[in-house]
Amino acid sequence: MNICSYTLEEFIERVQSLHGFAAPGVVIGGLMVDLAKQHLPEEGLFNAVSETAKCLPDAIQLLTSCTVGNGWLTVINIGRYALTLYEKSSGGGIRVFLDPAKVEAWPEIKNWLFKLKPKKEQNLELLMKQIKEAGARICGIQHVTVALHLLEKKHRGDIVQCPRCNEAYPGDDGEICLACQGEYPYIVSEIPDIRGASHAGEESSC
Amino acid sequence: MNICSYTLEEFIERVQSLHGFAAPGVVIGGLMVDLAKQHLPEEGLFNAVSETAKCLPDAIQLLTSCTVGNGWLTVINIGRYALTLYEKSSGGGIRVFLDPAKVEAWPEIKNWLFKLKPKKEQNLELLMKQIKEAGARICGIQHVTVALHLLEKKHRGDIVQCPRCNEAYPGDDGEICLACQGEYPYIVSEIPDIRGASHAGEESSC
Repeated sequence: MNICSYTLEEFIERVQSLHGFAAPGVVIGGLMVDLAKQHLPEEGLFNAVSETAKCLPDAIQLLTSCTVGNGWLTVINIGRYALTLYEKSSGGGIRVFLDPAKVEAWPEIKNWLFKLKPKKEQNLELLMKQIKEAGARICGIQHVTVALHLLEKKHRGDIVQCPRCNEAYPGDDGEICLACQGEYPYIVSEIPDIRGASHAGEESSC
Repeated sequence: MNICSYTLEEFIERVQSLHGFAAPGVVIGGLMVDLAKQHLPEEGLFNAVSETAKCLPDAIQLLTSCTVGNGWLTVINIGRYALTLYEKSSGGGIRVFLDPAKVEAWPEIKNWLFKLKPKKEQNLELLMKQIKEAGARICGIQHVTVALHLLEKKHRGDIVQCPRCNEAYPGDDGEICLACQGEYPYIVSEIPDIRGASHAGEESSC
């Protein structure tokens, strides 16, 4: 079994390297990306949508040119294990999803998809065996057209300096940045400021 | 100049491989991750926050064990070029940000941060030269405590089958899945269903 240009073993190694461990969800995601790509032309600029935040985004980031940081992968967390690769100007693309009717033949994959067993009781070896046996046969595939206007990144104006925190932020967010408006995930901040501690020549310890 | 365990050149190669091109924002992000890690113990389980969706998440994904797909990286898009690495049980961590006062000494970095020039007019060579010269000296660094309850992934109930699209979804989302409730980024879907086209043994073309 190949997943795009990798053997399954090579792909699993890459999953471990990015994702931290060979999560079955990323391996299944690899099969899904591979299937989508089989139905797309080799040429062309494709963007991606993941309909879940769990595992699948990492398969997309490993096997396509789409990442969260370059903006070509959009995660719309509507909780379905599905992805779409689409042509970025027309929105036309291929959606691949896990089809419960097809998963029925692979009980351990069904257990995983519907979370029928606590993770601790999951038989990972059997699950991986069934994933290898099943391959893309557990997937459904559809033509879709992405509503590009829904995925457009909103321009947030010129970048300006926040008069409160002094950091750069998009001016359309308001007179002070969103963080200073309270959209801030930190309980304690700004103290103590240890800015002086950083120097380019400092020895890295990581 | 090293970025974590990589030379700058090795890191740039890795950026190209994941992000598609050696974006200055990801290279600067690498310096920021490196600086944060210098102030954290080598042992311990760390999660990450990126305060922007642009570029920085990819530097974090390349240099830490935190990815979007494994849930250890949270993107809170409040538009500041800043990241935090924090201990996952206590929330205590290090926030690194670009400090406009320090960036002042490197005009091309300032142009990039405040988007003072259209991308086409950006002098990429000069920008990369200044990034190499400046290193982490353009960064500020702070101790912060992350409000863990704000970053908790909400449990959305048992996974059930949607009676409309027949796919698996988190039951707490409602009697039908969010996609069937209209949170759907596709204009056309479900037609034509080309499910029959997929077979595990099919030759991959990607």
